[in-house]
Amino acid sequence: MYRVDLNSDLGESFGNYKIGLDEEVLRFMTSANVACGFHASDPVVMEKTVAMAAASGVEVGAHPGFPDLQGFGRRNMAMKPYEIKAMVMYQIGAIDVFCRTAGLKLQHVKPHGALYNMAEKDKVVADAITDAIIAVDPGLILLSPASSMMYKSALEKGLPAAREVFADRAYEEDGSLVSRSKPGAMITDEDLAVKRVLRMIKEGRVTAITGKDIEIQADSVCVHGDGPKAVAFAGRIRAALEEDGIEVVSLRKLLA
Amino acid sequence: MYRVDLNSDLGESFGNYKIGLDEEVLRFMTSANVACGFHASDPVVMEKTVAMAAASGVEVGAHPGFPDLQGFGRRNMAMKPYEIKAMVMYQIGAIDVFCRTAGLKLQHVKPHGALYNMAEKDKVVADAITDAIIAVDPGLILLSPASSMMYKSALEKGLPAAREVFADRAYEEDGSLVSRSKPGAMITDEDLAVKRVLRMIKEGRVTAITGKDIEIQADSVCVHGDGPKAVAFAGRIRAALEEDGIEVVSLRKLLA
Amino acid sequence: MYRVDLNSDLGESFGNYKIGLDEEVLRFMTSANVACGFHASDPVVMEKTVAMAAASGVEVGAHPGFPDLQGFGRRNMAMKPYEIKAMVMYQIGAIDVFCRTAGLKLQHVKPHGALYNMAEKDKVVADAITDAIIAVDPGLILLSPASSMMYKSALEKGLPAAREVFADRAYEEDGSLVSRSKPGAMITDEDLAVKRVLRMIKEGRVTAITGKDIEIQADSVCVHGDGPKAVAFAGRIRAALEEDGIEVVSLRKLLA
Amino acid sequence: MYRVDLNSDLGESFGNYKIGLDEEVLRFMTSANVACGFHASDPVVMEKTVAMAAASGVEVGAHPGFPDLQGFGRRNMAMKPYEIKAMVMYQIGAIDVFCRTAGLKLQHVKPHGALYNMAEKDKVVADAITDAIIAVDPGLILLSPASSMMYKSALEKGLPAAREVFADRAYEEDGSLVSRSKPGAMITDEDLAVKRVLRMIKEGRVTAITGKDIEIQADSVCVHGDGPKAVAFAGRIRAALEEDGIEVVSLRKLLA
Repeated sequence: MYRVDLNSDLGESFGNYKIGLDEEVLRFMTSANVACGFHASDPVVMEKTVAMAAASGVEVGAHPGFPDLQGFGRRNMAMKPYEIKAMVMYQIGAIDVFCRTAGLKLQHVKPHGALYNMAEKDKVVADAITDAIIAVDPGLILLSPASSMMYKSALEKGLPAAREVFADRAYEEDGSLVSRSKPGAMITDEDLAVKRVLRMIKEGRVTAITGKDIEIQADSVCVHGDGPKAVAFAGRIRAALEEDGIEVVSLRKLLA
Repeated sequence: MYRVDLNSDLGESFGNYKIGLDEEVLRFMTSANVACGFHASDPVVMEKTVAMAAASGVEVGAHPGFPDLQGFGRRNMAMKPYEIKAMVMYQIGAIDVFCRTAGLKLQHVKPHGALYNMAEKDKVVADAITDAIIAVDPGLILLSPASSMMYKSALEKGLPAAREVFADRAYEEDGSLVSRSKPGAMITDEDLAVKRVLRMIKEGRVTAITGKDIEIQADSVCVHGDGPKAVAFAGRIRAALEEDGIEVVSLRKLLA
Repeated sequence: MYRVDLNSDLGESFGNYKIGLDEEVLRFMTSANVACGFHASDPVVMEKTVAMAAASGVEVGAHPGFPDLQGFGRRNMAMKPYEIKAMVMYQIGAIDVFCRTAGLKLQHVKPHGALYNMAEKDKVVADAITDAIIAVDPGLILLSPASSMMYKSALEKGLPAAREVFADRAYEEDGSLVSRSKPGAMITDEDLAVKRVLRMIKEGRVTAITGKDIEIQADSVCVHGDGPKAVAFAGRIRAALEEDGIEVVSLRKLLA
Repeated sequence: MYRVDLNSDLGESFGNYKIGLDEEVLRFMTSANVACGFHASDPVVMEKTVAMAAASGVEVGAHPGFPDLQGFGRRNMAMKPYEIKAMVMYQIGAIDVFCRTAGLKLQHVKPHGALYNMAEKDKVVADAITDAIIAVDPGLILLSPASSMMYKSALEKGLPAAREVFADRAYEEDGSLVSRSKPGAMITDEDLAVKRVLRMIKEGRVTAITGKDIEIQADSVCVHGDGPKAVAFAGRIRAALEEDGIEVVSLRKLLA
């Protein structure tokens, strides 16, 4: 039987600023990546988000990012590896405390935005992140694309790792995402997006932007919750998976 | 046999900004209160400071403060109790991660600056802090003056609590510190300061600024590390205690 | 002929975080209070907001607040008068640059949130603010309630000052706002709110929450833009004023 | 007669954190680059630093940097050109207000750290900075190396520009600084450093790290003030210039 996890970035509000329909999207998820107060979120938002996830039976992961609230963690920053390592450890510790008090065990770590993008290509950044995770708890699961340096780094070090795919993004032949700046980067046809997800899970294949079929592994599908349309699409993906007999389970169960 | 802990605020540097002679003062301490990145410190400083403490056999406590780096956490902020609770939990989680990876178990929590001062008088603030500590780990020790609302709150809730005294500060008759803005607030005569500390530990008494003797309990003496003179005085206090046959031990051992 | 200014707090977005329907509400305003990057806003938001105001023929004022983005500047902070003065000067300078490059001359200063509230009651805070304004440009207009210490301070120092009233808030007999925590603090009946505004402008009177009529001066009416309903009400106020033959003009023209 | 300006980065303290011997180094300078609250400094430090400069007859320039206090503005950040432009405008506005109230007219702009380094090589970043300066005041002087894209951008747009050299740094054959990571990057022999400065000013030549003589223009020499040794060297440079009959004047006088 096929199984897959559904993950979404949550807890991105900050003080008076609200982002995302966290409650609505949580219903469809099995794993939540919760921002840790650097690129988004604050202690009150984190406590509330983790409590909501716990109440919904959704597992929680750390979603660490650069210390750049204004840029929402989406601007590359030239941090040294030891700075990245300490920063990721700090953010894991912060979210972990809210998990423990909500009766959850922190499940995974998925870097955010520019940190995620840099770690996809740069082994030094990737190693700093996996070093941080292992230092805190070698049982935590890294969530990243199979083609990324992060995934490679995790495999090398024996860190549990899950492979993430995107329903709404086109892929290059090497399994990396087509840059958002290129035409065709986004899959806007929802029917097509659903079909692609099902095929990625069941066949382990997807059609790259070049038209060539490539291999791809999907342990978890990333969906968005930043608008009514995104939430509706999340619900549609969930329903399509279940109709197709694919079991939707958390990363922890998937890798157990 | 008399026993006492020596504590100091450490890890207050931030990025390129250096404060304190942490390495020098650590030699004389049994407990270090390490800033957690809100009023001072950053992840790199925290990691390094906790590692230094571990290498010196010094126990580590969280030193949470207001999110006010510019004011060094010394400006009162009107935060709501649930904001204070979540903020203290977050900071405990962040420092805890560096303790765990350094092979230490987080020992205590001592609020910093304006948060400490507000919690001394305001039971609502004090309760928010002890709620945060208990939520994370009810075995953590609160470090605060015996006369403070924090100490009262900890006793009410069964949270382990240690009583802090100051070598260089004058006391009011109610056991509270004389405000720094009043004349005579600081004990500048080092001989007198040492004598007062020894008497607080052995007799449980100190002469208040009014001239009247009051009762005071000293589980831990707070010393400073922000200059060569402060470090020298820290060494002098430590030597005086040992010469007098007072055992200098960590809070954990003291309360065991 | 009666004349009045309409002001609204604008430019409160920050990076990826959006607040307020600035473009919609600008159509009805004659003065915009633009956040300056401390409690809200960032340089990009400020540049864009001031350009929008200039394009709409709306005058711009500085809306300085506490350095507390997480609290949206709504939490009291115990800053020293010289800290407040320098902080207000800094924020005026920052917004002024965007006015100059948009072809505007900065018109006024209206403190935000907790700074506004503290300066209403605390003469020391009020004086720090008016000192800052005068240091930068003694021709700038302070916008504050007539009953506030800010207004008093401005009068004492010869700083131009305009008196602000609120359409949706109840008043105490001394002309101060009824605290939001008390029942009846908000005027939720829109018809009543409009009537009260017209009467404040034309008769210089309003019925306090106690039922007693009090004197009140209305140079400017504060309206909100944080939602479709607020914008609609802003439009309604504007229309009611014009139908009643009250000229809606900027503070600069009003005080000229 | 030869003339040159001496500039130094000042006002880099932040709240409780002190950096630099500003008062001591100011005595030897004709131009001060004052940090603007993003990578360093705060409103109180800025007000004080500008007042000190005014009292010493030293001209003031804006020293804008990335919004990265933890990294002291030394970490590259991938900001978009419009973000850089607005950010530089904001910082110029903030420092300008303290100049005006101190009776000074802001003289120049010299980007800091990673912003300076990126703008040396990247024309897009350089153009964003010169756009910002021109938007605020096209009479402001850009201070940058002659070999940098900033200088090129200023020349293209008719912005006044002064050429900066370093006493303690080695040069590549193209006039750029030898990276600090390479051996020989720093000129540690003070006698040699002084000789090189005098030759740069009088002959317009310096020996590159390869041994080849290159042309270099020195309108201003950058000196440091971050330690007693740096201050002593600043004094020595100043004395050597005056003994050699070189007039030490501000950028404004130099370019007048």
